[in-house]
Order: sequence, then C-alpha cells, then structure tokens
Amino acid sequence: MANSKYEYVKKFETDDRLPPSSWIVVRIDGCHFHQFSAEHAFEKPNDENALNLMNSCAVSMLEQFPDIVFAYGVSDEYSFIWKETTQFYQRRSSKLLSLSVSYFTSVYVMKWKEFFPHKELKGPPYFDGRVVCYPRAKIVQDYLAWRQVDCHINNQYNTCFWMLVKSGKTQREAQELLKGTQAKDKNELLFQQFNVNYDKLPQMFRKGSCVYRKKVEEVVKLDDTGNPVTRTRSKVVVEHMDIIGPKFWSELPYILKEECD
Amino acid sequence: MANSKYEYVKKFETDDRLPPSSWIVVRIDGCHFHQFSAEHAFEKPNDENALNLMNSCAVSMLEQFPDIVFAYGVSDEYSFIWKETTQFYQRRSSKLLSLSVSYFTSVYVMKWKEFFPHKELKGPPYFDGRVVCYPRAKIVQDYLAWRQVDCHINNQYNTCFWMLVKSGKTQREAQELLKGTQAKDKNELLFQQFNVNYDKLPQMFRKGSCVYRKKVEEVVKLDDTGNPVTRTRSKVVVEHMDIIGPKFWSELPYILKEECD
Amino acid sequence: MANSKYEYVKKFETDDRLPPSSWIVVRIDGCHFHQFSAEHAFEKPNDENALNLMNSCAVSMLEQFPDIVFAYGVSDEYSFIWKETTQFYQRRSSKLLSLSVSYFTSVYVMKWKEFFPHKELKGPPYFDGRVVCYPRAKIVQDYLAWRQVDCHINNQYNTCFWMLVKSGKTQREAQELLKGTQAKDKNELLFQQFNVNYDKLPQMFRKGSCVYRKKVEEVVKLDDTGNPVTRTRSKVVVEHMDIIGPKFWSELPYILKEECD
Amino acid sequence: MANSKYEYVKKFETDDRLPPSSWIVVRIDGCHFHQFSAEHAFEKPNDENALNLMNSCAVSMLEQFPDIVFAYGVSDEYSFIWKETTQFYQRRSSKLLSLSVSYFTSVYVMKWKEFFPHKELKGPPYFDGRVVCYPRAKIVQDYLAWRQVDCHINNQYNTCFWMLVKSGKTQREAQELLKGTQAKDKNELLFQQFNVNYDKLPQMFRKGSCVYRKKVEEVVKLDDTGNPVTRTRSKVVVEHMDIIGPKFWSELPYILKEECD
Repeated sequence: MANSKYEYVKKFETDDRLPPSSWIVVRIDGCHFHQFSAEHAFEKPNDENALNLMNSCAVSMLEQFPDIVFAYGVSDEYSFIWKETTQFYQRRSSKLLSLSVSYFTSVYVMKWKEFFPHKELKGPPYFDGRVVCYPRAKIVQDYLAWRQVDCHINNQYNTCFWMLVKSGKTQREAQELLKGTQAKDKNELLFQQFNVNYDKLPQMFRKGSCVYRKKVEEVVKLDDTGNPVTRTRSKVVVEHMDIIGPKFWSELPYILKEECD
Repeated sequence: MANSKYEYVKKFETDDRLPPSSWIVVRIDGCHFHQFSAEHAFEKPNDENALNLMNSCAVSMLEQFPDIVFAYGVSDEYSFIWKETTQFYQRRSSKLLSLSVSYFTSVYVMKWKEFFPHKELKGPPYFDGRVVCYPRAKIVQDYLAWRQVDCHINNQYNTCFWMLVKSGKTQREAQELLKGTQAKDKNELLFQQFNVNYDKLPQMFRKGSCVYRKKVEEVVKLDDTGNPVTRTRSKVVVEHMDIIGPKFWSELPYILKEECD
Repeated sequence: MANSKYEYVKKFETDDRLPPSSWIVVRIDGCHFHQFSAEHAFEKPNDENALNLMNSCAVSMLEQFPDIVFAYGVSDEYSFIWKETTQFYQRRSSKLLSLSVSYFTSVYVMKWKEFFPHKELKGPPYFDGRVVCYPRAKIVQDYLAWRQVDCHINNQYNTCFWMLVKSGKTQREAQELLKGTQAKDKNELLFQQFNVNYDKLPQMFRKGSCVYRKKVEEVVKLDDTGNPVTRTRSKVVVEHMDIIGPKFWSELPYILKEECD
Repeated sequence: MANSKYEYVKKFETDDRLPPSSWIVVRIDGCHFHQFSAEHAFEKPNDENALNLMNSCAVSMLEQFPDIVFAYGVSDEYSFIWKETTQFYQRRSSKLLSLSVSYFTSVYVMKWKEFFPHKELKGPPYFDGRVVCYPRAKIVQDYLAWRQVDCHINNQYNTCFWMLVKSGKTQREAQELLKGTQAKDKNELLFQQFNVNYDKLPQMFRKGSCVYRKKVEEVVKLDDTGNPVTRTRSKVVVEHMDIIGPKFWSELPYILKEECD
C-alpha cells in the first residue's frame, strides 16, 4: 500500500522561511486573559505571582532555545528576539512560532503550582503569537522601546484606575475621571489622593521584565595558595531596567550584534 | 510620553490572512517525542493511554473552536480541519496556528494526570505546527487519506519491529530483518512468528482516530403518555474507521460541504 | 575570480510559486492611459482602433502562451486566465506576471503602426499588472462576470457623459447631470436627447472582448470522389458575447475544465 | 445593475507590499534572447549597439522613476535599485515589477530604430523580471558586486569562445578547449593566439554599465562682470567602472544612503 497516490497534497505546503539578515521577533500574548485573570483572582493592577510565572517561563525559553538572545515581558505578553543569523529550523516561520508558543504554554501550566500553590487551574491558559522580522539592530531596539513605553502608559493608567476602584469608585466612574489625563496628572492624582509616589512602585510593574544571558564570574575552587579560581559563565537573568535609552544596549553590545552574513 | 515615535515598527508586520474558499489544515506534531516517550516509558509500539490523551485533547479542541469540523490523529500528530468559510481571526495564519498549538499543549499538560495518574511529567511536552490550505473538499479527503495510509504503513512496521525486539532481537537486527519487506510479508511474519493476526489488532492502532461532531438523538423527557421526547444534539465523538474510501464522506456530507462564497 | 563570496545574496530571493489547483489570473492595466489616450487623440468614449489593437495583442498572447485558456478585455485592461494545471515556469508568480506584461507591451508598440498608420507614438505606452489565484471554475466565471458588469456600468456612463459633452455641456455639467442616475435613466437620456438606442451600439463597446481557442472545421482537400476532407483545428478568436450567464460556459466546458490534480 | 454580487472575487487578491527599510531590486532579463540575438544578427561576443540600446532604456527608467537610485546592466539583463524608503505604489511588489518591466520593454521597442536603423524587428523582444529586497546598503553593494563578477567571468569566457570560433574552431571544439581553464589561462590564450590584451577591451564589455544620477555643475549665464553663474544639476549618466571595491561607494555615499525609518 504505497502512499504515492496521495502525496501530491504536500505540494500545497508553502515555503515560509524568513529572510536572512534579520532578527526574528516572536511575540506571544495571553488569549482571553482578562477573563482568565478574573477567574483566578489575580491581584489588580499587577499580580506579582502571575508576573513571576511569566518571567520563569521566559527564562525556560532562553535555556531551551539558545538562539533567543533577549526577551521582554509585560503583563500577559512576552517578546522573544531570535538572533539575526539563527538557522533554527531553517528560519521557517511556522516552526519558530509554533515551537515558541507551545513550549511557553507547556511550561506555564507545569509551573503553575509553583507560583500558585493554593490555586487550581480552572481552565487551560493559552496564548496567541505572531512573527515579525527586523533587519537592523536599531529597529529591534525601537521595537523593544515601543513595548516598554506601552508598559509604562498602561501601568500608570491601570494603577490609577484600580486605586480609584478600590477606594470606592465604580469602574465607569474611574474611567471617566481618567479620560484625557496626562502622565503628570496621573502621577499627581496618585500622590494627592492616595499618597502614592509612582516612581517608588516596584520596577517590575513600571518597566516590565528583561530576560537575557549575562556573563557572570564564578569561583570554581581555591588554588593551592588559597586564592579563588574563577571562570566566566553565561547565566540567564531577569531584570527590570530601562531599555528605551541607549545605555543598556551600549553596555551589552553583544546582545544585538549586527553581523555581515 | 506618547508612543508614536516607535510605532513605525508595526509597519514590519505582514498581512498573513489565508485565501478565501479553502479549508485550513493545522497539523501539530510532538517535538522530540521519541525522547519524550522514552522518558515516560510509553508502551511500544502503541501506548493506549498516550493515544487516549491525544484524543481527549482533540475533543477539547473541537469543543473550544466551533469552526474545526474534523480532526485526525495518529501517534503524536493531529490534523485539524477548519471549515472552508471560517472567519476566525480573519483567517490570519499565525493566529490559527498559534492558538491551535497553544490550546492543545495546555490541555495536554492539564490532562496528563488523568491519563497517567502514576507518572510525573519529567519535562514540558511541546508541539510544532504548520498550516496548509486546500481549496476543494476532494483534496482535503486526499490529505486525510494520505495521513491514514501513513498510519497504516508505520503501524505495521512498528508492530513487527517491536515484536522482534521483544522476542530478543536487537533493534539493528529487527531493522535488517524488515528491510525491503512488503505489507504481505509483514502480516505473514506477525502470524507465523508471533501468532498475531494484524487485522485483529485494535482499530485505534491501525486506523488512527477521527474526531468530529455527530448528530445524536437524545431523550429529553417522557411526555404525558409516557412516550420519550427526543431532540437532536451535536456531540463530539472519537472513532477509528476508514476514511480513505468514499463511504464515510458520502454518509456525512455535511462535514466537508463545499459552499460558494 | 570565483563568485562564491557574493552568492549569498541569492538567499534573499523568495519562493513565489503559486498554489496548485487554481486558475491564475494576470490582469494588466494601462498606466496613465487617461493621459495617453488624450495625447493620441483617442475617440471618446470608445476608440475602435485602440480596442482592436488591445484585442490583437491579446490574440498574440494566446498564440505565444498555450496555457492561457481565456482572455477578457475592456478599455485599457485585459485579464488573462492561465489554466488550472499550468506548470509554466513552475507557476512562479513573478515570471508569469513579468512575461505577460512584457510580451503584451512589446506587441502593443510593434503593432501600433498597423492600427494607427497616421499617428506617431508620442511616448512609451506601458501597463501595470497583478496576479490573483482562483481555486474553482465557478469563481473564475464570477471574476469574469465582475469585469463584464464593470464594462457595462462604465460604458453606459461614458456613453452618456461624452454625448452630453459633445452636445455642448462642460465636463462638470455632464457629471452633475449623471449623478445618481440609474441604468434605466441613462438609457432614457440617450434615447430622448440623442435618439440613441443603447442596445444597438456595437457589442465590443457594451460587452468587451473575449479571446479564446475555438475548434473550427477546415477543409483540407477533396478526396477521390470529390468530397471534402476536413480536420478540426484550434483557432484563437475574438468575440463580444455575454459571459455573465451560464450559457457560454456550458457550451464550451473545456475552457475552464476543473481537473483533479 | 450593481456589481456587488461579484465583488467578493476581490477578496482573493493578496497584500504584496514589501517590508519597509529595504532596498528593492528589480532585475529584468531578456527572454529567449539567445534566439533573439541570433535572429537579429547581434555581433558576438558583444554587440555594441544592442548594449547601447539597453543602456538607453535604463536611462529612460531613471528619468521616469525618480526612486530608482542606481541601475546596473550586463548583456541582456538590467538590475534597478529602488531607494530604501520608496513609497511608490505603497511598495507593492507586483506594481513595481510590472511597471518596471513594461516601461523598459516599451522603450526598448520604441528606440530599436534609433540603434538599429537598418534592421527590422522580426519578433517582439520581451523580458522577465523578479523582485528581491535587501535590508542593508552593504548587501546591496554585494548584490551589485555579484552581478559585476558574473559579467567579468562570462565576458572573459565568451571573448575566448568567439575568438576560437571565428578562427575556425567548431563551437564544440571551442567549448572543449576552454573546459577547466582559469582566468589567467584565458588571458594567456587571448594574448598568445590572438594577440589580444583582455584588459584593453572596451570597459563596457568588461565592466558592464552603471546608470545613476550625478551632480554636475552647469554654467547658467554670465553675471554682470562676465563671471559664469553656475548651478548644480542632477544628471543621469552611464559609466563603466568598478563597483566591486569600496571606492565608488565611498565617493558617492548619497546613492545607497541608509536612513532610519
């Protein structure tokens, strides 16, 4: 029973390899997470455990896929930057997308208990994803800046919104009060009404999370004279710093190094 | 702090809507499942629990996504047929792919305990996926026939292979013995050496699994005279029948109905 | 001096083969022909010579490319239908598009003198083009119906417009007079004001032009008893008939025959 | 008679806009020009008139399409580089391709008489074309280097080949003699047997042709004191220089200027 009669159906598959010389961004995003976070009583505006779970999944991603050079997460979304020259599955878009989103999802469910020991999953959390190519390091930085500015705008709004709601306003009233306000107005509102200094809130809420490999010095042993023998190791870290300005990128130029093919 | 300065990065996203008037097949496939099945001591050549877990996830898929009209699974792969006219996420390829593979993965991990109560997951199971469009019902049927013929060829080979290995041959010896054998030879070998009638093995192993909506008659209540009042309901079922011949499709023409857009 | 150092640039080329089992429509369209027709004093609303030149180019196309099964033209546009199973240049979109538009353009310039013996070309006529795939014969017919309905709507409007202008109205006045009128109103206007029966105008203006291969019977010679010996030959013809209704297609089913791959 | 019933066919058109921040190369290539050049008795290995006609068409291209910043031609092929930030027809691939190839073809036929006053066109010359995107200036330079190296390799081979043939060898003998020879061997052969110094052959044959805009100083008038008043003007020029090394590009950095979007 040969299969040749039906194999013509393979000709309908398309070649989806992404162009060379470009960074590949896979951004995943929680599907119906508004409802999911309500069902699981996530704290508002930021649930620290939920964010730490997301970050932990992102760390697993960088450990599993060596060609991911950087990841940035905020709320229920995460962007993974695959290095410019990756040849992972020949740069086939569907492979990169499906493997990323599937691995992330799998780890998310497996680690749930670790971050929410007292909450059962009430339904399957799942994520959509998309793939975008960026041909220059500078544009990848702008992409990440775009996400971090978004994080800032949303977090400032949400912080005000939930403060108002927790203080007794209805959600509609809170919405009305914030309509048209500027960044400065929101900071003022937080300080005046709730005695909250926005800039003192946790960095993770205000800046999102960056995951990348850092070179760390480790003491391996002491030598005969008692002096430490060290070696440099690459370690995946989670940090919450500014990536809009040039400082971070100029200090760690190896992350988005532009190479000639 | 407006975000407009960086929003140009959105222009790099591409329009990936799939063409109208075509069935969309999303096929997912276990990644490194050779290793995964070894780590979790799956029975060879077929682990009934593992297959039932896959089928259970497929049922969840049809319950979650009404536009999936049929699914066919074998081993660690599953094909989902989205209906010709689906407008789900505007037919965007990356949405259909990522949501399918993510939801399937999530359910797989969540249901693991149900099918393997005595085995802990040792690592995250994950799947890759691809998307293919087929413009006519007849070609979709040929696609599914292609997968079922593949199931048959692989299962017959694997049944022989593992019988030989369990009887004391090394994997290499078993491989050598099977080299160049035809279907008939393999059936003969099973019968002569192991007294196994291949055609009597479980249908699920030989035919794979079909998941679709079946119209079932249900008794709702009894009327005043004691006669049953029934209603027709659509129920997702798992079956293991031949889908290569025309019989199945002619009996259930509503599954792959070709419509004019 | 080997070329290998630079050959990596070829990896940026993309695979643009069109999907199997679909008719490929290449539609070309005169670029800036509003201006071109003014410069060359084309008659309004229809210049018979210009249309005949277009048709003659289309005939050349069918003679040059055997896999074009049908062409439909109106004004300065022409649609060429490549057969469902064509393997011309492996169905590469850019090849089909560029060769079609280039050959058409070349013939247009070469034949200009034949149709406009007393007019010099004042500038290079050129065309843009696009490629669209249609997976079923029925949809190709609808595509062609779409173009022929467009022909009808535009021609009726243009006939009224230019009659009014030739009778002394300004272009703006003519536009104003026609705003919001229905088909019936326009026919009435033509008849009342200009004594023109729209349905009596040349078919080519009202229906556009169809180009296809027709089987014709030819007398090859007379046999010994003086009776004609005939053979069937395929000849490219230009006709101006209705292709919106089913009649034409049911009489010539071989033109858009749907085959199974 | 509304057209809405059939307008659904437009949904089959795909969005073919090319990604931002990349140079767009349209390369056109004579179709069956081996035969075309034989029919029109082009001189071998290089027909000066035929090359000048190609170059003249390329000049027309740059005059017609301001966003073409550079063109490189050799034999019957020409590459047109559209500037990184062009918004011509929204960067739609099919528009850029079809308009380029159609305009070039049109001018080619129109100018034929100018370059071949004593030869009639015996059949329509036509060209295929393709579109490739390059995201960095450096890679565009490598693309052009690739074409110029190709020009060199082919021209050296063809010069030897036709010298041998003109000296009495059959085409097969000439082919055999050149099999496996290196650049040095070929130069030697030309010098020893035919007293030809390859490096003294016309630049156009050895280097191909570059077409671009050059800033030229023009005397507009003399001022009151008799001194010339000049202005800088951009003029399309044809030159035949090396573009493999960095010299040309560093002297004219404005041609492939990389901009931030």
